[in-house]
Amino acid sequence: MRNSRRGEVDPFIVMDVMEQARQAEAAGRHIIHMEVGQPGTGAPSEALQRLSADMAHGPLGYTVALGLPELRARIARHYRDWYGVDLNPERVVITAGASGAFILAFTALFDTGARVGLGEPCYPSYRQILKSMDMLPVGIPTHMDTRFQPVPADVATHDLDGLIVASPANPTGTMLGRDDLAALAAACSAHGTAFISDEIYHGVGEASPVTALEVTDDVYVINSFSKYFSMTGWRVGWMVVPEAHVRTIERLAQNLFICPSHAAQRLALHAMDCTAELEANAAVYRENRRLMLDGLPNAGFTRIAPPDGAFYVYADVSDYTDDALGFATEILDEAGVAVTPGLDFDPHRGHRWLRFSYARATADIVEGLDRLQAFMKGRT
Amino acid sequence: MRNSRRGEVDPFIVMDVMEQARQAEAAGRHIIHMEVGQPGTGAPSEALQRLSADMAHGPLGYTVALGLPELRARIARHYRDWYGVDLNPERVVITAGASGAFILAFTALFDTGARVGLGEPCYPSYRQILKSMDMLPVGIPTHMDTRFQPVPADVATHDLDGLIVASPANPTGTMLGRDDLAALAAACSAHGTAFISDEIYHGVGEASPVTALEVTDDVYVINSFSKYFSMTGWRVGWMVVPEAHVRTIERLAQNLFICPSHAAQRLALHAMDCTAELEANAAVYRENRRLMLDGLPNAGFTRIAPPDGAFYVYADVSDYTDDALGFATEILDEAGVAVTPGLDFDPHRGHRWLRFSYARATADIVEGLDRLQAFMKGRT
Repeated sequence: MRNSRRGEVDPFIVMDVMEQARQAEAAGRHIIHMEVGQPGTGAPSEALQRLSADMAHGPLGYTVALGLPELRARIARHYRDWYGVDLNPERVVITAGASGAFILAFTALFDTGARVGLGEPCYPSYRQILKSMDMLPVGIPTHMDTRFQPVPADVATHDLDGLIVASPANPTGTMLGRDDLAALAAACSAHGTAFISDEIYHGVGEASPVTALEVTDDVYVINSFSKYFSMTGWRVGWMVVPEAHVRTIERLAQNLFICPSHAAQRLALHAMDCTAELEANAAVYRENRRLMLDGLPNAGFTRIAPPDGAFYVYADVSDYTDDALGFATEILDEAGVAVTPGLDFDPHRGHRWLRFSYARATADIVEGLDRLQAFMKGRT
Repeated sequence: MRNSRRGEVDPFIVMDVMEQARQAEAAGRHIIHMEVGQPGTGAPSEALQRLSADMAHGPLGYTVALGLPELRARIARHYRDWYGVDLNPERVVITAGASGAFILAFTALFDTGARVGLGEPCYPSYRQILKSMDMLPVGIPTHMDTRFQPVPADVATHDLDGLIVASPANPTGTMLGRDDLAALAAACSAHGTAFISDEIYHGVGEASPVTALEVTDDVYVINSFSKYFSMTGWRVGWMVVPEAHVRTIERLAQNLFICPSHAAQRLALHAMDCTAELEANAAVYRENRRLMLDGLPNAGFTRIAPPDGAFYVYADVSDYTDDALGFATEILDEAGVAVTPGLDFDPHRGHRWLRFSYARATADIVEGLDRLQAFMKGRT
């Protein structure tokens, strides 16, 4: 049968590492997982109990395409509580994870061949989703002195139809401040460029993040219940769009998704009130971060992006290798620690970088750092 | 902010009817719902109980992109049990509903501008999803004498890059026999046309449906847990693809969806063993169908497509109106029965057709048919 060109997206290189880790575990080895981008915790337990009650109570059929009105209203309140932003709930769209939000956003904003900028390194699926829609991902090399984030001049320089930023970012964990976001939004506005702000790691990190909605309404903000709310496998997220775009998104969502999972929407609604459990999770990330920022340099990983948030440290390992994939394999084989080579995040420079995740339990982080220090001894 | 052209998909006209029905109910009227395409029942109760236990047991994090291996194996067994087809589980892909399957299939198979044929009338989202991906939906008018299904000659006549068929179909409920499917598959193969078989209504209906996998492996088969398995709001379905396409689909699924809902996958696995409850649901549809095939002609709706399966009757109402939308509004206002005008399914001829759904409880069907007969008295 025929194949399309747009369907030929790149494989995740990290999958090779994950498969190697799986095989090592199957062979009886104990592996510390610093490669995964998901919390080790599950959804808040009280929220799960309330969902079980909902499930016993009646059929969870389709919801309307934009999502449960009470969840949209609850998210609007969340913007007031966290950021002091007054948000019309009509602008909130519940989506099938941040993934579903990207599909809706790109479809509503861009046509075939559109040039969409991404600061490299970045979440690899931005690029692959755009390719799969016959749009043109435009990689913008970023640097330590701008915290690995794009700058306003990039918009005109690369003649962008759209720009995606993430704060905190994956894999670097760096954030954009209010002034940075305002300047990027202004540059996009001046150039007729759609501005998309990925905020899925908000709530996970040390510093208080700024939402792009604090500086402009002319933005698509994408968020998720997978990280702070620890609902990874439930596949539910949200998006805030300009008022004038709500109807377009509604029609697309009706046709492309019908609706997000009803159960996941109810669980999300319950989870938003489980502050104590969620803040306990966040405290674990903060403790893990403290350990990482101490332990990684001690092991010899000294050249790292400033990790403001998320649960990642991105380290320049060019002193030790220019084959990050081979180096990751070596670390897995010799130290029993799975880490992610940078190639998925940055096809040009990622062969000299590694991403370390600290999303799992603190005891694992302690053990992982010990192993990394032992492995690196003699190499530094 | 900018808008794309591809994002400008058509609204669902049925939404206007549903909103009118909602308003009538809010004003205290009792409405019989013959417009909805979802079961009134929920997921099997034992399956829900087992999922609650899973939820208490551990975090339901990401699964691999193609879905839980045990669910893929269980579905392969389902093809042996239902159809006598021996299927490699590696070819089974779990998706975020049939909707997610369409996105993956179209992306893997078609490029910008590809001509994809749909027999009209059909599920309206085929057309809108294709448009949103900058592909070209090609409407093929179908007729009573071919059970409102496309015929092999259409493939070359319309120079198709792809053909989508549905059996049982929405809105007509008609089915394709083994010879029909084989002839369509052969025509597609001869013309280098991708063949997609939508089988989401299998198990809902009188006759035993044929899967396209009985006649060819060179096909994308799309199915869902929403209808027979009554899991509408959980958003989980599956797709069977040729072996050579599995890796392409896996890469796309990793990037576009990460994975389908873990909870929904577990629920699906449990639901597949709840045969007694599912067959009781199916018996309700059969009884409802019997009532409809008796009651609708009595009311004056005599020109109907032969409803082999699904839970729909599609009726030619051109004796009474050439404004099906207005007629549906009249039926809602005067009889208190919500029905679907044909315009969403067939933009050219749908203004003379209505779709009646019998997915709800039998008592509702009896009451709805009484009301329709009273309404039509004097008009026939």
